[in-house]
Amino acid sequence: MEQEADNVDPRVQRTRRDVVDAATALFLEQGWAAVTHAEVAHRAGYSKATLYAHWPTRLDLVRASVDQMCAAVGHPQLTGDLRHDLIAGLLDFGQDLADKHLVRVFGGLLERAGSDPIVDELRERLYAAGTRSLDSALRSHLRAEDVEPSLALLVGGVLVRAGFQAQPADRPFVEDLVDRVLAAARRDDAR
Amino acid sequence: MEQEADNVDPRVQRTRRDVVDAATALFLEQGWAAVTHAEVAHRAGYSKATLYAHWPTRLDLVRASVDQMCAAVGHPQLTGDLRHDLIAGLLDFGQDLADKHLVRVFGGLLERAGSDPIVDELRERLYAAGTRSLDSALRSHLRAEDVEPSLALLVGGVLVRAGFQAQPADRPFVEDLVDRVLAAARRDDAR
Repeated sequence: MEQEADNVDPRVQRTRRDVVDAATALFLEQGWAAVTHAEVAHRAGYSKATLYAHWPTRLDLVRASVDQMCAAVGHPQLTGDLRHDLIAGLLDFGQDLADKHLVRVFGGLLERAGSDPIVDELRERLYAAGTRSLDSALRSHLRAEDVEPSLALLVGGVLVRAGFQAQPADRPFVEDLVDRVLAAARRDDAR
Repeated sequence: MEQEADNVDPRVQRTRRDVVDAATALFLEQGWAAVTHAEVAHRAGYSKATLYAHWPTRLDLVRASVDQMCAAVGHPQLTGDLRHDLIAGLLDFGQDLADKHLVRVFGGLLERAGSDPIVDELRERLYAAGTRSLDSALRSHLRAEDVEPSLALLVGGVLVRAGFQAQPADRPFVEDLVDRVLAAARRDDAR
């Protein structure tokens, strides 16, 4: 069986790629409000009619853009050293929040929480994609009941630091965070 | 010296209160995008001209609304039992995120991070107001270097749970979170 991509006219494939690239760039640079048919069409160099034909609603554009972000999340090779892997993953996450304006995308999805089931699904999907390697590292070293709270603490700690405390989630901060969360997860072993 | 409020025409005071109430309700219910002069004027029952006279820009409306939210943050009496006070404060915070749609306001401020210094100032102000009692409880029981990371972990953990993991930040979750963070903060004492 051929894959679907092989059946799609290459010009259509290029259009799709150009448009989704433009939507993603606008989302990251200017936030959800900028992801309109008019602005994306202008940036990608296509007509609004073309966009409406492929992506009838704004939410379709947003979804295509989040799909692209999820696919683009790097999955660093885990070394098997939990502390090292968590620190590396969280430093990446902190940098993406700051440099790539990922905080703007999360903000846009949080702001519209509950407005449409698709928004909530996109938010969960982006969170899952962004935290997959951290989750996998935790899962292979900690007991099952420690995984979700540890992940919430680590991701939340970096998010609050970068998003609200207006301080960098740099190496000393992240190392301290990881040591705290691991000490807590392992405290029961010592009892 | 008289206070400024005594010099303001009571009708002006009432107008201000009505308009800021409407702006805050729109912000919480529908997000930043709804806080426009037209929508706030319609909801409050005043003319757009009146609004422009008092709040020339949208950011002025947003700022007045965030000021009101900061002033409205409850400050529960601390009992002096750190674990109890943290659990109570975080349960409140989780409920505000869910019921009062506070997550939408934080999302709106995050989405526009860096777009204007006022937005960043409002975000920091709302975070500080919302976490004041937690911060004060931590400060009176833990060493200085444990306060900021513990606060980032606690607030972040609840934010991620309610905002991204799509699960309730209920009592069992919050108790477990607090026990982890306190164990980590106190681990050095045991060394």
